This record gives sequence, structure tokens and C-alpha cells, in this order.
Amino acid sequence: MEKILNNLGIKNVIKNIKRRIYEIIEKANPGDKASNLFDWFIIWLILLSICFIIIESFDFKNEKILALLNIFEIVSVIIFTIEYLLRVWTADLANKKKSPFRSRFEYMVSFYGLIDFFAILPFYLPIFIAVDLRFIRILRLFRIFRLLKINRYSNSISLIKKVIKSNKEELLITIFSASILILFSSCIMYYVEKNAQPDQFGNILATVWWSVATLTTVGYGDIYPVTPLGKIISGVIAILGIGIIALPTGIISSGFITELTKAKKKKCPHCGKKIES
Amino acid sequence: MEKILNNLGIKNVIKNIKRRIYEIIEKANPGDKASNLFDWFIIWLILLSICFIIIESFDFKNEKILALLNIFEIVSVIIFTIEYLLRVWTADLANKKKSPFRSRFEYMVSFYGLIDFFAILPFYLPIFIAVDLRFIRILRLFRIFRLLKINRYSNSISLIKKVIKSNKEELLITIFSASILILFSSCIMYYVEKNAQPDQFGNILATVWWSVATLTTVGYGDIYPVTPLGKIISGVIAILGIGIIALPTGIISSGFITELTKAKKKKCPHCGKKIES
Amino acid sequence: MEKILNNLGIKNVIKNIKRRIYEIIEKANPGDKASNLFDWFIIWLILLSICFIIIESFDFKNEKILALLNIFEIVSVIIFTIEYLLRVWTADLANKKKSPFRSRFEYMVSFYGLIDFFAILPFYLPIFIAVDLRFIRILRLFRIFRLLKINRYSNSISLIKKVIKSNKEELLITIFSASILILFSSCIMYYVEKNAQPDQFGNILATVWWSVATLTTVGYGDIYPVTPLGKIISGVIAILGIGIIALPTGIISSGFITELTKAKKKKCPHCGKKIES
Amino acid sequence: MEKILNNLGIKNVIKNIKRRIYEIIEKANPGDKASNLFDWFIIWLILLSICFIIIESFDFKNEKILALLNIFEIVSVIIFTIEYLLRVWTADLANKKKSPFRSRFEYMVSFYGLIDFFAILPFYLPIFIAVDLRFIRILRLFRIFRLLKINRYSNSISLIKKVIKSNKEELLITIFSASILILFSSCIMYYVEKNAQPDQFGNILATVWWSVATLTTVGYGDIYPVTPLGKIISGVIAILGIGIIALPTGIISSGFITELTKAKKKKCPHCGKKIES
Repeated sequence: MEKILNNLGIKNVIKNIKRRIYEIIEKANPGDKASNLFDWFIIWLILLSICFIIIESFDFKNEKILALLNIFEIVSVIIFTIEYLLRVWTADLANKKKSPFRSRFEYMVSFYGLIDFFAILPFYLPIFIAVDLRFIRILRLFRIFRLLKINRYSNSISLIKKVIKSNKEELLITIFSASILILFSSCIMYYVEKNAQPDQFGNILATVWWSVATLTTVGYGDIYPVTPLGKIISGVIAILGIGIIALPTGIISSGFITELTKAKKKKCPHCGKKIES
Repeated sequence: MEKILNNLGIKNVIKNIKRRIYEIIEKANPGDKASNLFDWFIIWLILLSICFIIIESFDFKNEKILALLNIFEIVSVIIFTIEYLLRVWTADLANKKKSPFRSRFEYMVSFYGLIDFFAILPFYLPIFIAVDLRFIRILRLFRIFRLLKINRYSNSISLIKKVIKSNKEELLITIFSASILILFSSCIMYYVEKNAQPDQFGNILATVWWSVATLTTVGYGDIYPVTPLGKIISGVIAILGIGIIALPTGIISSGFITELTKAKKKKCPHCGKKIES
Repeated sequence: MEKILNNLGIKNVIKNIKRRIYEIIEKANPGDKASNLFDWFIIWLILLSICFIIIESFDFKNEKILALLNIFEIVSVIIFTIEYLLRVWTADLANKKKSPFRSRFEYMVSFYGLIDFFAILPFYLPIFIAVDLRFIRILRLFRIFRLLKINRYSNSISLIKKVIKSNKEELLITIFSASILILFSSCIMYYVEKNAQPDQFGNILATVWWSVATLTTVGYGDIYPVTPLGKIISGVIAILGIGIIALPTGIISSGFITELTKAKKKKCPHCGKKIES
Repeated sequence: MEKILNNLGIKNVIKNIKRRIYEIIEKANPGDKASNLFDWFIIWLILLSICFIIIESFDFKNEKILALLNIFEIVSVIIFTIEYLLRVWTADLANKKKSPFRSRFEYMVSFYGLIDFFAILPFYLPIFIAVDLRFIRILRLFRIFRLLKINRYSNSISLIKKVIKSNKEELLITIFSASILILFSSCIMYYVEKNAQPDQFGNILATVWWSVATLTTVGYGDIYPVTPLGKIISGVIAILGIGIIALPTGIISSGFITELTKAKKKKCPHCGKKIES
């Protein structure tokens, strides 16, 4: 049978269809209308899906709306499932040097592969495993991961990514320094304020919450020092918080300038050194 | 009759008057005193008009004040109407290649043309169409658009505009990333906090409000997490919020530096490459 | 008599003393110990003076403390008065080309001259003019101006001043744009929220207060929108507020870089063009 | 006896052991596994120690947990004590030119030496001196200094340090200007608001707290002006606060760019001037 198929060139046809499907579900090449259409269809489906999650959160009692939400959920899961299966099937075309099984496995454990999987998981799990209602609710949370699927289509994010990557070390040090500062100020604040406000500053985790809110200059106002010493420390932390804002901003500024300058420099044909053109 | 006027050169006189009016209502050329005077007159009329809108909002019962406000409103609308009609009439002088009708239509649907129109609309609409009181109140809101008329006269806004325009893509990506972050954190926060605070975190739109207030580090304090998990997520969002502040700042910084460097560079007379002079 | 003095060289002696006093009260030249000592004495007197104003605000009933505060106030006013008179007397040495009277008048109406004057005024005014108690209290407010006297001694503020000055235009446009944005959003917010919260958003000045608190991301939490539309507008304003923070930061960043680069550039001896050394 | 030891080369052995211990307790050279292990052990001990301080703050009544906390505290203090003694003993290897006593003394009064000392002090002090319970609690606060020991191991902090150091003067001026602004606005605000809110704006120190919260855009919302004049001043301070954020950010941005540009420049082999390579 297979032989006959081969003779008839059907295997070749399937191979071509598979390649075309791969092209369509991947990010569109410029001019590939079908692929472009598919991309926008998925983006809109994701956004609609998130909209419906938001609507669902309003807890309507109206049965018609609930039915509509349910139908949309089933339809979107079916589409996302087909998309996921096609992606697994065509994953071997991404890298021909590796074995098809290995390519597929690599896609499935990749960042986007896992997101694609978790985006449909909450629908199928209750079918296979007996779970209680509480757990299903937590599972539904996983549907939010659909939102991250959308990142696949934003291709101009690269410059920002490059800037962040090339300054990763400095940014990490800033976060590390901020963490030390948060822990240190939280410990001190706990000893300073716990007698005056045992409810608000009852333990060090509570003061960490205060510390983060102050250092990021959010300042909700649910927790703040009332003792003079506490206010002085709080003021110092708030002022240092400006430094914690200034540092990453400065790092990212210089990163952008470096990247943009690099892009503009070209090699001099005479001496091989980079010149501005 | 028209022939006689032509012979008398009256058509020419009108043409000259029209040109002069056009010069006066457009932004003043340096040294053109009449045009300059007209510009400042309109700017002050706009500012006064906004002042009166503010005063009106205090809901005085005093009849004398109300009468004064009414008279000022009528006078200013008449002046703005004359200005609008003159702008429509002289619009054909802006681009002589196009037909007068087309030039006028283009002005009327342009940004400033629409603003000029909406700034006077609330006064005339109730005369032509029978509208109820509620709608008139909304219409009065349109008077605020007069404020945007003032932008026409600030001519040094160009550098800032250029910087924002040439970094439009990066700024849009930042806004897009921030939107994804807001939606994602809102969804998670909803599931985390809704049991603890069903009033505050009752639906995802309410958590979007929290998310925006945290990410922008405004932190009104009307809504904040109380569960430990919610506080941890909130802390992470607040810290990421600093990144969301740092990114556009970095982009704009590098944009300003690039623009200022560009302005200083000149072409080398020998090789045609740009050099610093 | 004067002639005799002249003969005895006393006029010369006075001239020398005057010059020496001028040197001492002006900012110290490096190595001039007496002048340096005087500078630090005045700085500490100002700081102490402000400390006492702060202590006074605690409204102690203790008579001993009140007496101490009174004595210190009298002593410091006497010293500041002597300083002021000496500055007026020696002002003619600042610019020898102008007439002594003109030099003195120019000092008296200069920024620091007026500050020196207002810093002692609240003590003398009640002596010369019959004033009621209320007015005296307002007068006491003027003592705070002593704090501004301290600026005279910080000499490394020049780079920051230069950066702000050379970017004055862009910074002013940012402030202007922010003002338009504040006014515009305040007007809209008034119409949106006034029915829901007539107490909080009762008039446009109240919404201006909200608008400033949001745009600067301070967010006290005393006033915030509760209607869905109001929350959406508030979110947009908060996000635009980040832009309003990013713009001056970017402008000042590029200003610092420009100033620092300028300082490092030197003229090439061959072609006269500036080169980095 | 000593002579025999010398003959047996034991003194040499001790010397080698000492050198090895010095290598291990100092920051690890790349490839030195034992030293690396020791570093990570100390880092984790510090973090665990802080975790236990946080847990302790929850005031558990459970005796088992208290016993566990106590045992961990004793073990960690013993390890930190051994570390401290070894550091003192091997301090003479840091600089061979100085006398061993001097090297050790210099370590003991150095920043990290004092931190190492204060991190173990709260455990030993009650043994040697009779102290009351209140004082012991304050002493326990000193354990937080262990957190600062961790800084010893972060070696890539140098670029940030360099940027801050080379712009120290500008940053200090910003802090100085902010301080003047805080004091000045606090004094004015006190006179403006004290009649309307005697509880909140009762003295100038209270208004300093408000001023810091506003200028850093934290805005807890526990204290804010209610009079129109107070709101206007508050708005101005909040807007100036953006400048106070923009200045250090701009300074640090330009600092990073300067440092990164410096690193990339090399000397030209022909003229000795720095060129971009």
C-alpha cells in the first residue's frame, strides 16, 4: 500500500503540505498572505480569549452569557489544540540535522512549547483525572498563559532585548543591591516600629512589604511609620529609592546609546577601524 | 458689474486683503506686529476661556457672575467663529497647486481644523437640533478642546516631537510590553486576591486598575493586596514598574543625544563623511 | 580735619580695612583662613537659625526654652544685620567702574541682596510700623529665606546650572506640555466624576489637584476616580505621567553628556577642528 | 622545643596551612574549588541566618521552633566567630610590608572587619557584661549586619561604584539642593497648613516628613494639604520632585556612557591620542 502511495507521489504531496503548514503557523515571511492571515487570526483569538476571561470574572448569573462564554472557550481550545498538534508535527522542519523525535521534544519543552501546552491543559485535565472543583479553578488560571503566546509575533522587540541582555550584569547588581537594601531596612524598621504599631509592623515580612512599596515610590499608604525614628529611616529609604530608579534608567540609557552608535559605525576601508558614516 | 469691479481693481484689493488676513491668523513671521498681536490675543482668549470654564465649575448661584460668564462665552464664541470662518476662507492660500475647495476641505478635516470646529460646536448645536439638557452638558465638555488650539503657537516643540517620532517603534513596544504585563498580572492578582477581598478585587477590570496604579508607581492606596502571595506579586510588579519607567526614559535619553549629535555633525569637504566640527 | 586724616594716611587704612572686610564676607579664596572661617560661621548660624525655627514650631510652653529661642533670635538678627550693612558698604568694590551708589543699589535689589534683607526684615518691621499679631506671624515666615543665603557658598553647582540653562527651552516646553495635559485631563475628569463624587471632584480646581498628584505619580490617595470611565482616564494619565518623567530626565541626561563631552574636546592644532584628546 | 619544631619543618607547615586558609577565606580565585565552596557556604549561612531572624520576628510560641532557632543561632555564631578569628590571624598576609600587628589592627577597624565583629557581638556581650533585657533586644538588631558581609563576594559591583564615585560631586549637590528644597517647603507648608490641620501639620518636623514623601513621589497619603494654597505649593513641590528624580538619573546616565566610552577608547599608535577601535 505504502509503495503504491509512494509511486503515486502522495508522500511528496504530504511533505509539501507539511512544509506549507509549517510556513503558515510560523511567523509570516513578508508577502506570505496566508501565513500573515493565520498570525493575525491567532493574535485576535488570544486577545478575545483574554477578553472573555475578564468578562467571566464579573460572575454573571445570566445563563445565556455563560453559555456563550462556554461555547467560545470550547471553540478556542479546539483551535489552540489543532495549532499545538500542528506545531508538534512540523517541529522537525525547524532543524533538519536533528532527528524528528528530538526536534519535536525540544519544541515541547521550549518556552513557547510549554506555554502552548499550558494554554490548553486546563480544558483537558479534568477529563483525564478526577479533580475537585477547587483545583479546576486554579487550573483555569493557566489560561492566562495564552497572553504570552502573543509575544511570538512581536519582532521589533529585539533592540530592547539586546540592550537588556548586554547590560544584564549591571541590572542584576542593581536588583541585588536593592534586595540587600530592602532586607536591611526591613529588619531595622521592624525593631523600630513594632512597639508603636504591632498590627502593621508585626513581623519582618510585613516590613519587607513596606520597604518595597517605599523603595519603588509606590506608597499605597496601607503601612507607614509613625515614630520619629521610623520616619527618618523611611525618608532615607525613599531618597535611596530614587537612586534605585536612577541606576537602571542610567544603565538602559547608556545601553541604548551604545547599541545605536554601534549600528551606525562602519569599518573604514583603509585601516579596518570603525568610522562614523 | 463684476467686470466693472475688475476694472476698478477691487478684486485685486480683496485678494491683497485676503493674503494679509491669512498672514495675520497664521503663526506670526518675526517682525509682523499685527500677526503677533493677533496670536497673543487668541492665546489669552483661550486661557481666559479655560479660566471661565474652571470658574463655572464652582456652581455659583450668584446671578451676576452667571450673567458675566454667559456674556464672555458668547463673545469668545463669536470671535472663535470669525477666526474659524476666516481660516476656512483663506485655506486656499496654504497650497496654491490644489483647488480652493480641496484646500478648504483639507483644513476642515485636519487636526487643528477639527479642534477649531469642536471648540465652537457646543454653542451652535442646540440652536439647530432639539437636544435634551443632558446632551448639552456633554457638549459643553467639547469647549475644553480650545486648549489644544494653543499648541498651534508653540514652535519649539519640534525637537521633542522629532525625538519621540524617531523612537516611536521602541516606545510603542514598551507600551505593548507594559500592556501585556498589566493584563497578565491583573489576571493572576484576581485569582489570588478575590477570596480575601471580594469587594476590591471583585473582577479583572478592578485588578487592571490596581495593576496600572502599581506599575506607574502612583499607588493611590484605594486598592492593594492583603494576602502574602498577593503582596509578593505586587512587589514584583512594582519593581518591574521601575523597568517600565526606565525603558522609555532610556529610549528618550538616547534619542535626544542622537538628535543633538546629528545637528552638530557636518559633512567633510574631502570625503563626504560626517565629521564633528 | 579730613585733610589731617589724609595726611596721616588714615583714609588709606580705612580703605584697606574695607577691602579686607570685602574679602572676608565674600566667598573665601583658597587659603584665606579668616574668610573661610567667616563663611563657615555664617553657614552654621543659618543652619542653627533654621533648627531654632523648627524647634519653635513645636509650641513649647516652657519659659526657659522660649527665652533661649528669643535670645538666639536677637543675636542672630544682629549678626545678619551687621553682615548686611557690611555687604552694602563694601558693594562698591565689586565693580569699580560703576559709581559707589549704583553698585550698592544693584546689590540691594539683587537676588542675594533681597534675601539678606528679607532675612532680617521680620525683626525690625514691628518696631517701625504698628502691625497686628497675625501679620507678625506671616512676617516670621520670611526668616526661612535665610536658608537661601546658604546657596551663596556652594560653588560646584555650576555644572548642573549650565546643563539646566542650555536645555532651558526643552524643559520649559515639557512643563508647558504637562500644564496643558493637567488642565485638559482635569476638565474631562470633572465632567466624568462630578456626579459620582460631588465632594471630591466638586470643581475643576479639585481635579487639577488630582491631576498633578497622578501625573507626578505621587498619588496621596485622598482623591481618586471611582467610575470605570474615570479609572480608564486616570490610567492613561498615569502612563502619560511616566512620559512626563522620562522627558526631562532624557533632556538632562543628554545635557550632561553634551557638557562633559564639550569639556573634553580640544582644538586640533593642524585643522582647527575639535578632537577628543 | 621550638628549635626542634623548626628542624622538623613544622613551622613551615604551619606557614603553608595559614597561607591556604587565607586563600580559602578570601574571595575565591577562579578554579580554587575549596575557596569557592567556602564562599558559597558563608553566603548561604548569612542568607539562612537572615531567614531565621525573619522567622523569629513572627513570635512563635511553639517551643520546638524556638529551640531550633536557638541551636541554629549558636551554630552560626560559632562559625562566624571561627571565620572572624581566622581572618584576624591571617590578616598579616594581606600586606607583608606592614607589621603583623598593624595589619591585624587595620583589618579589625576596616569596614568589613567591624561588620564581622558586630555580627557576632550580640551573642557574646551578655556573657561578659551584665545587661538588662531591653538592651539585649537592641543588640540583636546588630545581627542584621551579617547581611552586609555578603557584599564582600559581589565583584562586579565595580562599574556602578566607579560611576557613582566619578559623579560624587554632582550627586552630592543634588542631595544638598533637595535638602534645601525640603527644608524650605516644609517651613512654608507649616505656616500654611497648621491652622487647617493642627494634628497633621503640627510642627515643622511633621511637614519635613510630608515634604520627603512628596518630593520622592512616594505619597503614602497619611499627610497631605487640604487648603488651596497648600495644594498649590504641594503641586509645585511634586513637579520639582520630578526634577530631583531627573537630575541624579541624568548624572548617572552620563556617567555610565562616559565610563563605557572610556573603556572602548584605545591610544592611536601614531599620535598617542585616543581613538575608537
